[in-house]
Amino acid sequence: MLTPHHDGSPLHVSNAAPELGEVVRVRLRVPSGFGLLDWVGTRSNPNREPRYSEARLIGAAAGWNWWEADVEVENPVHGYRWLLVGEDGRQHWLSQAGLSRVETRDQDDFRLVAHEPAPDWAAASVLYQVFPDRFARSDAAAERVWPEWAIPASWGDAVDPEPPGRSQQVFGGDLDGVRERLDHLVGLGVNLLYLTPVFPARSNHRYDASTFDRVDDLLGGDDALVRLVEAAHARGIRVIGDLTSNHSGDAHEWFRTAQADPDSIERGFYLFREDGSYESWLGVPSLPKFDWSSVELRRRFIEGPDSVVARYLRAPFSLDGWRIDVANMTGRIGAVDLNAEVRQTIRATMVAVNPDTILLGESTNDAASDFQGDAWHGAMTYTPFTRPMWSWLQQPGGPAAGGIGFARNAVPTFTGSEFVEAHLRFAAGFPWRTRLATMNALDTHDTPRFLTHSRPGTVPVAFGLAVTMPGIPVVWAGDEFALTGEDGEASRTPIPWGSEDDPEVAPTIEAYRDLVALRREHEVLQMGGIRWLEASDDAVAFVREAADASVLVFAARAAARLDLDADALPQLAGGVGAVELAAFGELRLEASDAGTVLAATGAAFGAWLLPGVAAPRQ
Amino acid sequence: MLTPHHDGSPLHVSNAAPELGEVVRVRLRVPSGFGLLDWVGTRSNPNREPRYSEARLIGAAAGWNWWEADVEVENPVHGYRWLLVGEDGRQHWLSQAGLSRVETRDQDDFRLVAHEPAPDWAAASVLYQVFPDRFARSDAAAERVWPEWAIPASWGDAVDPEPPGRSQQVFGGDLDGVRERLDHLVGLGVNLLYLTPVFPARSNHRYDASTFDRVDDLLGGDDALVRLVEAAHARGIRVIGDLTSNHSGDAHEWFRTAQADPDSIERGFYLFREDGSYESWLGVPSLPKFDWSSVELRRRFIEGPDSVVARYLRAPFSLDGWRIDVANMTGRIGAVDLNAEVRQTIRATMVAVNPDTILLGESTNDAASDFQGDAWHGAMTYTPFTRPMWSWLQQPGGPAAGGIGFARNAVPTFTGSEFVEAHLRFAAGFPWRTRLATMNALDTHDTPRFLTHSRPGTVPVAFGLAVTMPGIPVVWAGDEFALTGEDGEASRTPIPWGSEDDPEVAPTIEAYRDLVALRREHEVLQMGGIRWLEASDDAVAFVREAADASVLVFAARAAARLDLDADALPQLAGGVGAVELAAFGELRLEASDAGTVLAATGAAFGAWLLPGVAAPRQ
Repeated sequence: MLTPHHDGSPLHVSNAAPELGEVVRVRLRVPSGFGLLDWVGTRSNPNREPRYSEARLIGAAAGWNWWEADVEVENPVHGYRWLLVGEDGRQHWLSQAGLSRVETRDQDDFRLVAHEPAPDWAAASVLYQVFPDRFARSDAAAERVWPEWAIPASWGDAVDPEPPGRSQQVFGGDLDGVRERLDHLVGLGVNLLYLTPVFPARSNHRYDASTFDRVDDLLGGDDALVRLVEAAHARGIRVIGDLTSNHSGDAHEWFRTAQADPDSIERGFYLFREDGSYESWLGVPSLPKFDWSSVELRRRFIEGPDSVVARYLRAPFSLDGWRIDVANMTGRIGAVDLNAEVRQTIRATMVAVNPDTILLGESTNDAASDFQGDAWHGAMTYTPFTRPMWSWLQQPGGPAAGGIGFARNAVPTFTGSEFVEAHLRFAAGFPWRTRLATMNALDTHDTPRFLTHSRPGTVPVAFGLAVTMPGIPVVWAGDEFALTGEDGEASRTPIPWGSEDDPEVAPTIEAYRDLVALRREHEVLQMGGIRWLEASDDAVAFVREAADASVLVFAARAAARLDLDADALPQLAGGVGAVELAAFGELRLEASDAGTVLAATGAAFGAWLLPGVAAPRQ
Repeated sequence: MLTPHHDGSPLHVSNAAPELGEVVRVRLRVPSGFGLLDWVGTRSNPNREPRYSEARLIGAAAGWNWWEADVEVENPVHGYRWLLVGEDGRQHWLSQAGLSRVETRDQDDFRLVAHEPAPDWAAASVLYQVFPDRFARSDAAAERVWPEWAIPASWGDAVDPEPPGRSQQVFGGDLDGVRERLDHLVGLGVNLLYLTPVFPARSNHRYDASTFDRVDDLLGGDDALVRLVEAAHARGIRVIGDLTSNHSGDAHEWFRTAQADPDSIERGFYLFREDGSYESWLGVPSLPKFDWSSVELRRRFIEGPDSVVARYLRAPFSLDGWRIDVANMTGRIGAVDLNAEVRQTIRATMVAVNPDTILLGESTNDAASDFQGDAWHGAMTYTPFTRPMWSWLQQPGGPAAGGIGFARNAVPTFTGSEFVEAHLRFAAGFPWRTRLATMNALDTHDTPRFLTHSRPGTVPVAFGLAVTMPGIPVVWAGDEFALTGEDGEASRTPIPWGSEDDPEVAPTIEAYRDLVALRREHEVLQMGGIRWLEASDDAVAFVREAADASVLVFAARAAARLDLDADALPQLAGGVGAVELAAFGELRLEASDAGTVLAATGAAFGAWLLPGVAAPRQ
């Protein structure tokens, strides 16, 4: 049954980036068949005391009655929900958790956020993730002298997933290599390059930086990063870096000083115990945990114009933002929780240097509590998208899949309905604009590659969902080459340059290119609302909506058929108005006055352009 | 269907008041028919990074398989949930929100709390709320000279709900009057007396204190409070007071100084604007809001041994705790949120003076975010109990009911299932021990009286639920006299002393007495676990459980019958083992090998003592 709808998109919210104290107009659509309403309005909870704002019925269009209420943004994160009172006195609440007869909880409220928003380009981004050692080698790479810890490999060698190769096997990719391959990114259509760490370290992943003072010479040094960013910018591609705020490597100069000299100021950067041992990430001694009560650590690393955070955003580096590793654990230990201070300090430093930057935080589980908009623009999290999507699209009974955060690394099998339920449960914790800047990843450098054990034909389904659901689509470099990898180590595969035209590779690159184009060409997929239409075991359907255009999306993992009532998509009444934008697999869309049928004969993904949503004028 | 069960009770948690770093043993019960399990354990999230602890199958008893896991309390509020993996790989999660195939959110986790707990007597309390002006007059009351603002009334006069009588009509109840009527409290069996404010003010409710330096002379002054507390203690009754941390009255000496002298230190106690106006509670100018950034305000009011908070806990006053008014809004305005600092400071001050005290906070809506155990022991909130219970038991289509926090003051009508759903939704936000110290009120001095428009015969149902569900049962003085009141003003009725034996009153007093006794005599109702068994439109059933005893509870608002499977209550197999503890209305309990039938011919409440839950030994 069609139900009342609201989300944070421009169709429903007059300003998603309000100032504190600003009045925002919010709109609710109610299906005309929902029953007569005696009162409609919002319930806010400023300073934790409820306040109601009565909505006005402002018009009707295409089967929906539109209501509008004024909501004053009284706190920086201002929650609100809708209340609909029927003529019979029946109450319905509408929150991000859906429609409920029973009062809902604050944490499921829609939210207006008065903190500084992400730049507009965040939601318009398609992110391409590069692990520098494995992406591409420049000619200079051949000349490099490797340090003792490194185990050099040839580009065509297999990735060694076992220690010591696991972290010490080096393929010699470098930043000039990335620069020389930017045309590949341009060809794919991506516009945001995310580089995993580039600082000197003693591993191929470089999450154990020994200094933040310079870019690793093995990657080409500072100059190579400057060249890469300049070249990327020239092609309309932004670049973000990667910092770990939870810990450093034990070879970091700060830690070495701290360990050598108990009287050093650096001693206070870490959490040494009386016996000289120290806190570390999950007890791994090579990753000592920072003590963020240290003012000097803050100054050097995250606070002010001379900090690491600031330095690489400024010329000549001019990075466009940061992805922060292990953001979730940062500043937290026992009874101490400095996380909010740290993340807010990082963002304040960035804003002072260049507000046109983004800040993403890794928090791969339920990220809601930290991601309300006070610092992180979006989350690298696996709860609203990656895990539910894997559970729906991976082959049942597949092997353990580590790094994605599945319990015991086992991938539970979901129906399409459960995929939607899981997605909505976790999405409900975020403000709308945080959802728009949160990463929709099929996989990353920490996980197996999605393709490895996915149901046949579902790569375009999975990436199709990534580009059509709210959030920043992520391409983990190599996925477009149809690479596989059983775990986060094996998935760090060197890119098989030259295979682009191979019959197994070319269609995948083309699918990625087409889906990235779909996303980038249709603003409604970046900023529009989302309304879920139907879900079954094997198929799901939703529509992204804006005033000027809508996109209907249908995804199936196997032969399936969904029947939608005619009022679900009034734009299709009469069987007209749908323009096919993408079609993978065998698909059928039939619209008539009786309703809409979406069908597939096997794994399939389709998107159709529909007219926009008719809404009363302001 | 019977499902796996866990809660925070001693059957399932080895220590509900652990130290940080302590390992707690937690137990899960799984019905033997649930299917074979490949792995069972807990998922914690210390420092926001998941950690699993595998459970051991420790035995089976009475149809349940018992699993036990070790959970280290790594943060002061340590969330955990259960994961059950079937032999077929299917996963089930069990959190406070129930059983789910789909991963659950952090906020629904079970919680272990390492903050200082409430005293043991908190959960064993039955609270009796007294509004001093309306409870009882001592002989001294006749001699009192009333100030100009007061509109004296005779004890038998009607309460005037309209201004100025609304706040200025005084009936002259006083603290010696309360003391002289303590035998009534003893007769009821209550053991915790909550006095609304006793400081000098310019209203009958005294929430607009003019000073906290002394008890109002119109109530008998300091000495009368000392006499009352001494007399109450002598009868085994503890006494708590009432403070407002959000604001003072505009006649308060601090505010008068602040307003008169912009250079005074008191000026900083409030939130004056440049034009001389100031922030106030919901914009009511007579209630100026505190600015908790003032160190001197903290010192005078809440911090340290000379503060107001401390002074009345010390001899000679020796109060046993505080109920804090408008706790929810305290310290919150715009972008400022000092709530956590204020509540933690209040509690720290109390602990320093006398840790054997309780701290309750008023937060009448979703209180979860502030009530995780860092300060408030329990909430005066209406979300988990009062509103759901009204929605189930009030007559449909009744008049507006203000003060309870219903949207637009309208009481939506719930089924029994919706009552349970609403209760569980809000209870899921609290740690178990916060639930035990949270107030189960039918009504208060801020609301209409429950009886006024409730379904016939449901007072024992409502109060029966209050004494058998987790939480502190509350008697708002006068409810036991079958008083009615259309709103929070009219419900502040002077107690009709002498009517105790009237035919309309005596059965109500007896019902309250019996139900208070039920609660106090059975520790399982204070501390035991709770397992919901069944709910329909007109009836609900649950069981409170401990090792030595269980209590089965059945509540109906109209003729109803619930059928429970035999395995739901294995103690009753064979039709033996139930001892009737309370029966209001016409009730039937039939237990056989086929299951248990609970039936009522109309509104009814019943409780039966059952054997305790057989559990493997530690």
